[in-house]
Amino acid sequence: MIKVSKPALIINEKICRNNILKMKLKAASSEVAFRPHFKTHQNIIVGSWFKEEGITKIAVSSVSMALKFANKGWDDILIAFPFNVHEAEEINNLASRIKLGLTVSCPESTLLLKKSIKSKVSVYIKIEVGSKRTGFPAGNKEEIAQTINILAESNNLLFKGFMAHAGHTYTASNHDEIRSVYRVNSDVLKKLKKTFSTENSTPIISWGDTPSCSIIPDFEGVDEVRPGNFVYYDLMQLQIGACNQENIAAVVACPVVAKHPERLEVVIYGGAVHFSKENLLCKTNIPYYGEMVSLNDDGKWKFFDEKYYLRRLSQEHGIIQLPENIFNNVKVGSIVGIAPVHSCLTADLIKDCIFV
Amino acid sequence: MIKVSKPALIINEKICRNNILKMKLKAASSEVAFRPHFKTHQNIIVGSWFKEEGITKIAVSSVSMALKFANKGWDDILIAFPFNVHEAEEINNLASRIKLGLTVSCPESTLLLKKSIKSKVSVYIKIEVGSKRTGFPAGNKEEIAQTINILAESNNLLFKGFMAHAGHTYTASNHDEIRSVYRVNSDVLKKLKKTFSTENSTPIISWGDTPSCSIIPDFEGVDEVRPGNFVYYDLMQLQIGACNQENIAAVVACPVVAKHPERLEVVIYGGAVHFSKENLLCKTNIPYYGEMVSLNDDGKWKFFDEKYYLRRLSQEHGIIQLPENIFNNVKVGSIVGIAPVHSCLTADLIKDCIFV
Repeated sequence: MIKVSKPALIINEKICRNNILKMKLKAASSEVAFRPHFKTHQNIIVGSWFKEEGITKIAVSSVSMALKFANKGWDDILIAFPFNVHEAEEINNLASRIKLGLTVSCPESTLLLKKSIKSKVSVYIKIEVGSKRTGFPAGNKEEIAQTINILAESNNLLFKGFMAHAGHTYTASNHDEIRSVYRVNSDVLKKLKKTFSTENSTPIISWGDTPSCSIIPDFEGVDEVRPGNFVYYDLMQLQIGACNQENIAAVVACPVVAKHPERLEVVIYGGAVHFSKENLLCKTNIPYYGEMVSLNDDGKWKFFDEKYYLRRLSQEHGIIQLPENIFNNVKVGSIVGIAPVHSCLTADLIKDCIFV
Repeated sequence: MIKVSKPALIINEKICRNNILKMKLKAASSEVAFRPHFKTHQNIIVGSWFKEEGITKIAVSSVSMALKFANKGWDDILIAFPFNVHEAEEINNLASRIKLGLTVSCPESTLLLKKSIKSKVSVYIKIEVGSKRTGFPAGNKEEIAQTINILAESNNLLFKGFMAHAGHTYTASNHDEIRSVYRVNSDVLKKLKKTFSTENSTPIISWGDTPSCSIIPDFEGVDEVRPGNFVYYDLMQLQIGACNQENIAAVVACPVVAKHPERLEVVIYGGAVHFSKENLLCKTNIPYYGEMVSLNDDGKWKFFDEKYYLRRLSQEHGIIQLPENIFNNVKVGSIVGIAPVHSCLTADLIKDCIFV
């Protein structure tokens, strides 16, 4: 049995490296830069696997993550989260050491950026492409032009290009929908690129989101891709069709702490503080927070043919209902594997990692 | 403006101390022991406020939490989570230093406990009272008797009593329902106590859950109460009716990083890695993850008359929709306050605390 005393993230190195390689090759064959988003794994060892593939540019979602990876030698980092003026000092320090990219997603933020940034940084203008999270509406050319002008007035702020994250692909119901989101919105970005190209400079297009980066065969017209979740994938990506079961590179090892034969339920040490409360709905519309996998003694796993869901979570407890034959094989003290619904949140919550 | 650079938990000391005092007095007037659950705050300073009120016994939900508080001088700690055999070594070490309580919630677990525990501990038998989380079904007297016998065979395991957590009060729709859960289940426990009392020993009844501990006026027949969430309360407790707005002792301070006038939405630094994905439904059945409060420069807050919900979360982003007048007052760079849906999960996620 794999040795864990509390919930730990098991990372399958071979699957993970394969996910990295596949996305790298796809970016290469599309002739776009590959700037993987490290917010999913936030892990120095997993980061080193990217480095071994020759990846040198990364994206992160916080200043502290940027600092963590800068301290491990990463020197081209984009903070793909709107500029937070309250971290200007840390950002200035970091920008004096590495090639740093920042994100602005509204005009007010650009003015704060101009006032507070004292070191040279690249600036990406975030364009809102339908997920209604953040960014300039693509149709608002006047504000985009003003923003580019404000950046141009500063010696420190280099306008790098347009960035989009089509977060609504996460709720897509099929590949066609994702392809359509990509086609429509990459066209929008291409038009913006054309509009705002000058003799001296051509803005790049940086495209995010794992579902479209996994499904679109060729990133024609885009200059850079920034998927993150693909490094591990998860049940959500599986449901969208962005991956297969064999691409899922991380599951959670959880000790079984109680068994209740009267309801064929086992209780695991693994709750909302390990899985977050992200859920998906099963066929009967009941939410679940993870799915049990068959875990070998060496920490490798495979999916069962049937679905055994992590049905309920409290702070530290998780409840799985099982058919009798599986229930009888699981003992109190067994370690079970749970594929998470959303690996980004699970990896953020569980810092103990086991590499297999 | 209160000084924060990233999401931080603001803890209002006066409200928090008042919540502690109120629950302490209620326990005292009911003549039951007060063993607050520290899983909610997990905070040494907040813990010290309990100590100042003369509280000496606590409950926690993990071995690492027990260790943390033991290292700060707490010497009577119940781990109110089913015994995890993989942490037996840490538990034995801890039990040799302090008065430690453990929980068993099924027969298999008791055998593991007997085999692996080498220091003296108190053992609570968890009884399942309807939340279908974990515990012996109260009707299963034979297994309970066997468990008590197994404990009696060991010199190290002292059977302390019966413990219940009526987690289904969290989904109660009114006070009557909570009172009924309490009445029915405390009666069940009282009968168990009577059944398993001997000439030499009387098991105690330990009762958990904030909703019932907040609403029930008198804990007649119970020997110990273990509420946790009441220290901060939150929007979920407010919805249940376990607290009022003025009892909520913790909100999250979040920097505003973007504004989108076309949809009257502000984007905050504050996402699923700060609030978890716990949600409640508003009147129109749309989920929300928090509610904006009016935050003063000194970090104190009050609730708005209207509801301004934290409507969408991604990993680090949160989106709030506002009416125009409030929207205009919020600037990029402002710090807004968000009352969390579930303070236990939020406090687990945000370790930066500001005391006001």
